[in-house]
Amino acid sequence: MPHIKLFSPGPIEVSEKTMRAFSRPMIGHRSKDFQALYADIHPKLQQVIYTQQPVFVSTSSAWGVMEGALRNLVSKKVLTCMSGAFSDKWFDVAKKNGKTAEPLQVDWGTAITAEMIEAKLSEGGYDAVTLIHNETSTGTLNPLKEIAAVVQKFPDVLLIVDCVSSFSAMKIPFDELGLDVMLAGTQKALALPAGAAVFTVSEKAYAKAATIKDRGYYFDFLEFRKNKENDMTPTTPSISHFYALQSKLEDIFAEGLEARYARHLENARITRQWAEKRGFELFPQKGYESITLTCCKNTKNVDLPKLNSLLKKKHSCVIDGGYGKIKGTSFRISTMGDESTENIVELLGWIDECLPEAGTVEPAK
Amino acid sequence: MPHIKLFSPGPIEVSEKTMRAFSRPMIGHRSKDFQALYADIHPKLQQVIYTQQPVFVSTSSAWGVMEGALRNLVSKKVLTCMSGAFSDKWFDVAKKNGKTAEPLQVDWGTAITAEMIEAKLSEGGYDAVTLIHNETSTGTLNPLKEIAAVVQKFPDVLLIVDCVSSFSAMKIPFDELGLDVMLAGTQKALALPAGAAVFTVSEKAYAKAATIKDRGYYFDFLEFRKNKENDMTPTTPSISHFYALQSKLEDIFAEGLEARYARHLENARITRQWAEKRGFELFPQKGYESITLTCCKNTKNVDLPKLNSLLKKKHSCVIDGGYGKIKGTSFRISTMGDESTENIVELLGWIDECLPEAGTVEPAK
Repeated sequence: MPHIKLFSPGPIEVSEKTMRAFSRPMIGHRSKDFQALYADIHPKLQQVIYTQQPVFVSTSSAWGVMEGALRNLVSKKVLTCMSGAFSDKWFDVAKKNGKTAEPLQVDWGTAITAEMIEAKLSEGGYDAVTLIHNETSTGTLNPLKEIAAVVQKFPDVLLIVDCVSSFSAMKIPFDELGLDVMLAGTQKALALPAGAAVFTVSEKAYAKAATIKDRGYYFDFLEFRKNKENDMTPTTPSISHFYALQSKLEDIFAEGLEARYARHLENARITRQWAEKRGFELFPQKGYESITLTCCKNTKNVDLPKLNSLLKKKHSCVIDGGYGKIKGTSFRISTMGDESTENIVELLGWIDECLPEAGTVEPAK
Repeated sequence: MPHIKLFSPGPIEVSEKTMRAFSRPMIGHRSKDFQALYADIHPKLQQVIYTQQPVFVSTSSAWGVMEGALRNLVSKKVLTCMSGAFSDKWFDVAKKNGKTAEPLQVDWGTAITAEMIEAKLSEGGYDAVTLIHNETSTGTLNPLKEIAAVVQKFPDVLLIVDCVSSFSAMKIPFDELGLDVMLAGTQKALALPAGAAVFTVSEKAYAKAATIKDRGYYFDFLEFRKNKENDMTPTTPSISHFYALQSKLEDIFAEGLEARYARHLENARITRQWAEKRGFELFPQKGYESITLTCCKNTKNVDLPKLNSLLKKKHSCVIDGGYGKIKGTSFRISTMGDESTENIVELLGWIDECLPEAGTVEPAK
């Protein structure tokens, strides 16, 4: 199978350097070698998350930790902020775990605001809020700083934030914002292979977890913390992901965090500008556009499968033809991970080249 | 870091061929390419498990599925068969999930017999039994066929079997034995990198799961089955493990299942014979020795850390110095995965060479 570069928002392209690290020989996960590996990456992870708390690598996709957070922290009622495929699903996952969940549903592409959350929390009875920072299905970035500030007004409420597609691409200061859980899959902005998730937890959240009896084992936050004291994990970890993370953290600090953030912002700016010039309206509400991917309305009815097959054939790459209920009526271009501004300009040129040949389809009803 | 070959029982040595497959470029997990990958490996997995049921790859270590099985299947009471570090822990994991669990505890190294299970189940009130087929901490192989037959006498009871360190090394005919859940981590007999687990589920178990309301999402057996209908997974999978599994299944069928089983048996026979000749008593009860690893009592008080540091230095390999409460008083040699009989003979020669220099320690009190 030829190597097709993924400009779809996760999994994304993984560099050869990362893959070399990823495929290093196994080591015992109860060995000093593993402890040294975890100890090496840990302070760098803390720097990227701006936290003094221990940081964990879960051998699961992000959904494991998203479910785990509910099991660890919710005994009364969780407010689930819903504005796209992934945040909508979090509500269902809460129900499947026997939790009482209250939806805060807005239209896909609309931002969740601090005011909306405050209004809901003021009703009382909540012990947690789930929020997807950057809703990958719609390319919408929610105002985390404002939301975190408002949740602080409710001392019994914990804020669980999925940063799957924003983590490491923009500054998310965990301790300063007073977040309670931050989690991210490895296959998006970190540009590692899929199969693991990074997360961290506040003191307040640990205290709450300690009161919950059936929080389980595999995603038990207290087990993760206890094992981390010895630079170990509760269960056999995906050692390969630890190696890949070590390599990626090297890259991140070689570039510099601020430069990394600026690069992501510039990639997004170029892509949005391109969309505007080509007559593609942006899907997200104005002012809340993601900085790691650009989601456009398919306002010109481009035949997206055709476009992708041309991109594949001519340039060995693909973008994304829309997710869930907006598949076909929207498309997404990922600009996250290792992509340079030059790469993005090149990609946009390729799309321009293929658009006429791709042609159009009948508009979706 | 130099490449140290692991003769400790999991993670074990991963071949270069497997690592090449493991580090192939990412593909979209909702793409036709992923569907084709899963569809390619699936019938081979079914053959290795001797089942007509769908087979799943969980992006988690085996513990995730071990916990998941309890959440999917236990509403009344689970009988946890306990005879070593991992099977003992399963009892705790049941409690942490809010399940009622009854211990069937025997001394480490003693086999769990069908009679013991029958006596317990006859008391009534159970809906499941957990069993570790091959208890990796003690090198003890439990008589699965006899146990499965006895559990069949109790139609309301489901048999959940962890085959982490026996899977693919010996014949475990899932359908014929009437097992309800079979699960295995990838880092043991399959010789893949750590970070994923393979499992399958019976019709009876699906029916039970459907009655359980708070079985969760990440390890929900019904979600796995529903997604498998389209050759997909409920959440972002570790795509790399699917590739590695594809490569390994090629190897397994190139060798032939029967030849693979025979090789594992021969490796075990040679290792047991070596232990006997050197005056090391086997840890497991006679007649119940594992065929993938040999656990010896450290009857000669060998300085095991010293032995391992010599093996590392002279031959770039390690064995295992005992697990949990029998660390130091036992040691384990893994002979599973890709190891040829020649490799094992060579390893045993290296141990012989290093033993005199390793010296002895004071016997543990």
